[in-house]
Amino acid sequence: MGDSLGRLFRITTWGESHGGGVGVVVDGCPAGLELSEADIQAELDRRRPGQSPITTQRKESDAAHILSGVFEGRTLGTAISILVWNEDARSEAYAEMKELYRPSHADYTYEAKYGVRNWQGGGRSSARETVGRVAAGAVARKLLQSRFGVVTVAYVSRVHEVAAQVDPSTVTQEAVEASMVRCPDPAAAERMIERIEQARKAGDSVGGVIGVVVRGCPPGLGEPVFDKLNADLAKAVMSLPATRGVEFGLGFEAVRLTGSQHNDAFIAREGRIATATNRSGGIQGGISNGEDILMRVAFKPTATIATPQETVDREGRAVTFRGRGRHDPCVLPRAVPMVEAMVNLVLLDHLLRATTRRDGAHLNAFFEPRIIRP
Amino acid sequence: MGDSLGRLFRITTWGESHGGGVGVVVDGCPAGLELSEADIQAELDRRRPGQSPITTQRKESDAAHILSGVFEGRTLGTAISILVWNEDARSEAYAEMKELYRPSHADYTYEAKYGVRNWQGGGRSSARETVGRVAAGAVARKLLQSRFGVVTVAYVSRVHEVAAQVDPSTVTQEAVEASMVRCPDPAAAERMIERIEQARKAGDSVGGVIGVVVRGCPPGLGEPVFDKLNADLAKAVMSLPATRGVEFGLGFEAVRLTGSQHNDAFIAREGRIATATNRSGGIQGGISNGEDILMRVAFKPTATIATPQETVDREGRAVTFRGRGRHDPCVLPRAVPMVEAMVNLVLLDHLLRATTRRDGAHLNAFFEPRIIRP
Amino acid sequence: MGDSLGRLFRITTWGESHGGGVGVVVDGCPAGLELSEADIQAELDRRRPGQSPITTQRKESDAAHILSGVFEGRTLGTAISILVWNEDARSEAYAEMKELYRPSHADYTYEAKYGVRNWQGGGRSSARETVGRVAAGAVARKLLQSRFGVVTVAYVSRVHEVAAQVDPSTVTQEAVEASMVRCPDPAAAERMIERIEQARKAGDSVGGVIGVVVRGCPPGLGEPVFDKLNADLAKAVMSLPATRGVEFGLGFEAVRLTGSQHNDAFIAREGRIATATNRSGGIQGGISNGEDILMRVAFKPTATIATPQETVDREGRAVTFRGRGRHDPCVLPRAVPMVEAMVNLVLLDHLLRATTRRDGAHLNAFFEPRIIRP
Amino acid sequence: MGDSLGRLFRITTWGESHGGGVGVVVDGCPAGLELSEADIQAELDRRRPGQSPITTQRKESDAAHILSGVFEGRTLGTAISILVWNEDARSEAYAEMKELYRPSHADYTYEAKYGVRNWQGGGRSSARETVGRVAAGAVARKLLQSRFGVVTVAYVSRVHEVAAQVDPSTVTQEAVEASMVRCPDPAAAERMIERIEQARKAGDSVGGVIGVVVRGCPPGLGEPVFDKLNADLAKAVMSLPATRGVEFGLGFEAVRLTGSQHNDAFIAREGRIATATNRSGGIQGGISNGEDILMRVAFKPTATIATPQETVDREGRAVTFRGRGRHDPCVLPRAVPMVEAMVNLVLLDHLLRATTRRDGAHLNAFFEPRIIRP
Repeated sequence: MGDSLGRLFRITTWGESHGGGVGVVVDGCPAGLELSEADIQAELDRRRPGQSPITTQRKESDAAHILSGVFEGRTLGTAISILVWNEDARSEAYAEMKELYRPSHADYTYEAKYGVRNWQGGGRSSARETVGRVAAGAVARKLLQSRFGVVTVAYVSRVHEVAAQVDPSTVTQEAVEASMVRCPDPAAAERMIERIEQARKAGDSVGGVIGVVVRGCPPGLGEPVFDKLNADLAKAVMSLPATRGVEFGLGFEAVRLTGSQHNDAFIAREGRIATATNRSGGIQGGISNGEDILMRVAFKPTATIATPQETVDREGRAVTFRGRGRHDPCVLPRAVPMVEAMVNLVLLDHLLRATTRRDGAHLNAFFEPRIIRP
Repeated sequence: MGDSLGRLFRITTWGESHGGGVGVVVDGCPAGLELSEADIQAELDRRRPGQSPITTQRKESDAAHILSGVFEGRTLGTAISILVWNEDARSEAYAEMKELYRPSHADYTYEAKYGVRNWQGGGRSSARETVGRVAAGAVARKLLQSRFGVVTVAYVSRVHEVAAQVDPSTVTQEAVEASMVRCPDPAAAERMIERIEQARKAGDSVGGVIGVVVRGCPPGLGEPVFDKLNADLAKAVMSLPATRGVEFGLGFEAVRLTGSQHNDAFIAREGRIATATNRSGGIQGGISNGEDILMRVAFKPTATIATPQETVDREGRAVTFRGRGRHDPCVLPRAVPMVEAMVNLVLLDHLLRATTRRDGAHLNAFFEPRIIRP
Repeated sequence: MGDSLGRLFRITTWGESHGGGVGVVVDGCPAGLELSEADIQAELDRRRPGQSPITTQRKESDAAHILSGVFEGRTLGTAISILVWNEDARSEAYAEMKELYRPSHADYTYEAKYGVRNWQGGGRSSARETVGRVAAGAVARKLLQSRFGVVTVAYVSRVHEVAAQVDPSTVTQEAVEASMVRCPDPAAAERMIERIEQARKAGDSVGGVIGVVVRGCPPGLGEPVFDKLNADLAKAVMSLPATRGVEFGLGFEAVRLTGSQHNDAFIAREGRIATATNRSGGIQGGISNGEDILMRVAFKPTATIATPQETVDREGRAVTFRGRGRHDPCVLPRAVPMVEAMVNLVLLDHLLRATTRRDGAHLNAFFEPRIIRP
Repeated sequence: MGDSLGRLFRITTWGESHGGGVGVVVDGCPAGLELSEADIQAELDRRRPGQSPITTQRKESDAAHILSGVFEGRTLGTAISILVWNEDARSEAYAEMKELYRPSHADYTYEAKYGVRNWQGGGRSSARETVGRVAAGAVARKLLQSRFGVVTVAYVSRVHEVAAQVDPSTVTQEAVEASMVRCPDPAAAERMIERIEQARKAGDSVGGVIGVVVRGCPPGLGEPVFDKLNADLAKAVMSLPATRGVEFGLGFEAVRLTGSQHNDAFIAREGRIATATNRSGGIQGGISNGEDILMRVAFKPTATIATPQETVDREGRAVTFRGRGRHDPCVLPRAVPMVEAMVNLVLLDHLLRATTRRDGAHLNAFFEPRIIRP
């Protein structure tokens, strides 16, 4: 009952980690956008397992199939259905999980909620579910970039104790993708990879922080009072598996400043209203102000580890569990495209909403060309 | 277009800081709950301006009027409308604000979005809007506590550099309310008050962090995959004015642990499945696990300060602005009931949703008594 | 849990027939529209009880109060709250209703649903609830007419056995309002009034049919596949009290034609695509085609009659009930503004939705003027 | 942007008549329901083209594939994705349609809305889209029948001028399915088949009326004030292609009665409150009263006919069009399972909603068994 997100650009994902496949229905994509399976695939390849030595070695080609909503290379304006088949599902690896609850996984909470669960992997709680999000995010990204010049870049800014130095105002996706760990600070990236390798060898795992910057966002996105842009962004990224926190602008560090230190002075710059500093992170009163949007998302260390752990079975009896599947010792590198997808989905939804907020003069103009016919 | 929150327990707030009044419509409250204006008033009094020396000295009685949905002292199951009149609106204090944009307020973003704004105060972006949230939260709280034994306690855990020591597993609302600054650690509370007084005297402001614990929450609340309990809680609190970040369980600190350090082992305790530790903060896979729900919310320092600030007017000309209204040097004490309200609203909505997730046997039983008549 | 309607122009009504008042919150009205209480009042006066000899003689001034969302005579783009106080509530007239179920009223169904009901009148099921709808409809009407030239006219086309001859392509609101019974066919109107008077004298009631025409609707409103324009219009009018059926274009009569008789041939007319006939009633495939939208709504005879009726009390014991309140012997005249309101609310919501359906070129243009500053 | 329906049992359909496939995502199905592809297939076979001499002779096996949400034969409580591949898409038959607008189809309105359309068949406006609805309806039907004893039966009550005599209180699905035209009155069925054959031979088409009865519906379904049960049912069936009207109980005929003739007296029957007559059609004040729900839906004659018709091309030039595809001369027989699906989807959604309307005592009981563990 929570498989949909968005009001005007609305996605509905489906699928478990094991079973037929995973996918998404995109409802509300404007018509006329050039869109191909290659556009989707480019993003899916960034989240695909087995893409580098530091991710899980599961092999899934994750090939995107567009089943509806695109005709002669352009979106029709109607529902776009995208499907990815599941492969390499070695469910026997999960047999022992049938009767026990893996620590810090969703096995117990799903069973408490539904009275039943798909014990072959994490079922719906698996990160495999994010395939649909990333596929839909690719559609949103294309529209945002090609029509509006809105560009979202996410990057790994921290892995365990290793922090990177990144300037969000200049970071590029190219710099991010140049690194296997998706950290655009080469020195930090190298240490992060070492740290992840170390965790893997120890049968352990590590978490980290992803930074996000959105450049080119017009002012006016976000709706009072509950659908503030930061509120919807917070929900979107916190709905990703393994997230533990989110902050905007200076975030929790804002607490260390006084108001006179924290406030962003308005100035005129290049013919528009701007702010001299950007401690607000591009959002004021829940609405974008035209500056870069800045946010950070914390991910906990992966729950599945090879080290034996104490837990209980369904009858409450103590048992020892040791993860046997091929899992990521650190989700951060693959989480980068997931975070970008969520941010782009929210931005496009709010951008479409914003077009309806001004008076009828604008809207009326919108209908003009439609009525005219030969 | 974002004035409503919730799916089954759904609130719609309205009202600006200056003008007729503020209020809320609560749609979806179950029938039969005892409810009086006193229940609402108790919560409104906790957020009311002028309640203590460290809040704004504006005087508003904030008297709650229930206009519908309650009959003979019980909820009817239909829409509950609650109204609070605005008072003490000295809008002349705002006249100079008509043409300029106050730094780090929503003046500019509202105007960018709508082409117009209510310059008499913050309009819809004012924290006065939260009256409706707190009123609705009082209804949710009553149902949660009286029927389900779910208790939410929020408290000020930090003001600027002053951090409190609070044990969320034992903190009580009584201890929180015993302190003017709503910090249950008396020593820290004293220093916080000093820090706030110091900021006021300096014409400045300070921010802080609010901690939240929910005790007695049953397992099974939260919906895959977008409406995870933490995702909806994050949206709800981030929709409050001045919030900058939110985290669950260990939050950003979880990054410093490895998976083997972070995972919560399951155990059997008092006839039910529990966890030996609670680093997950009561939510796993987006669904409550029956442990205490733990979260923290960061608030920036109040934007309005008495110190002169540089900004621009609507034409982009540099001007100097100095806040003249009576504002809170620190929003934290009054934000405590706001955060509790948002958390309770989300919990009740998810609790109602959860009742529909099991198979028909349960649901069928639900209808039994209804069909039977003499 | 069903007190809201609309996705982008979204209304939430509240209030019972007896108690504080009734009202509506309008969320999503574009900013910059001139709006006054007089605009609202004009529509409320058309649905007000006691407006003519053939309606109920209850006296309620139904004065509209705008409590938020309008500033200096223009909409702010944020939530508009409109309140109407209840008056003349002679609830003692309802005391005997406390223990019995009035035939064909909602007394029993509300009690079956909620276990409790407001027995002072119909509570939330009363037609008084439509005050909020009509107030919100006045806002929608103003925007539709002033910005888009979309005009909705409803009229009484039948009362019991008396049918009117009305040409929907030319009927005006002036002609409708010239008649106490809101039938623009003077001869039929006279007979309708007689029929209603006759029913009143007999302690009985009559129903009828309301016709609706929308002129000036641009093509392209309506969303595949569930939110078709006719589907949303059907829901909106069927949510009004006492409705029994709705039809579009030829409606049930379409069944009597073959496809070759029923199809509307496309032609070019005045530089645009049009249809030679309009048997489809302006909607094809669930989307407006630019022709007049035509619909008809059936209302049952009023349930409350002065004639004694058999029924049962809450214990199932047979009792005799005779309505004592002052009720409409025919709801049709006062239902005309209600139907118009519902149609206008749906049209505006779909018009706002439609602005987002084309590609980014349009949307991008929309943002242009917003970014430009000195 | 209108591809979803329902609040708690929520379906999202996707797919065009030509292209990869069609399908549906079912969000909110309670966990633990036994469900197989055969359950879905049984309903799809009833709507399948080519099932009898009087339907289109297009051949599509319409095989249902469940891709997620079912595990070991039971629903998981998470999203159920059902896919049906398209076959037999002879899109060359549609080539001439690329530049012209077929009369009374959605070609023009889709193009007016989106600026583009899938000219290979009706695209998203095709009745093929209803595959997803019927598949989802099969899930709803199973839950309604197996857990709640709620049974929906639809039947053809009229084809063009041929009307059937059917007693809704006793009609069975077996009697309906015994007839190729799905009319349980054998004499009328024979004449209907003749009428349809006659239309086909004439290159023409005919419409008709479908009657619906719901038996076993508990009282209390439906939400004030917009989500009345009849309002949501009206929207659901009016969203089906080719519908022109809907009515409940006596419908438009109610207009011919006075209040004293129309009202349903309450009585006690078999230990529960009932009504002596059922002119209200099982719904009062928008909420079910426990009696049979009765409704009728009008379908226009099929727009596609073999007879040449006048129309225009995209430039407004007059052209002659003659349908060449293999279409149904009468949609009624195949529309029966579509109508049943829509009714069942709405009923289940409202049944789930209704479980949350009573006070916490009920809800609390619901959570009891969940908390108890060994």
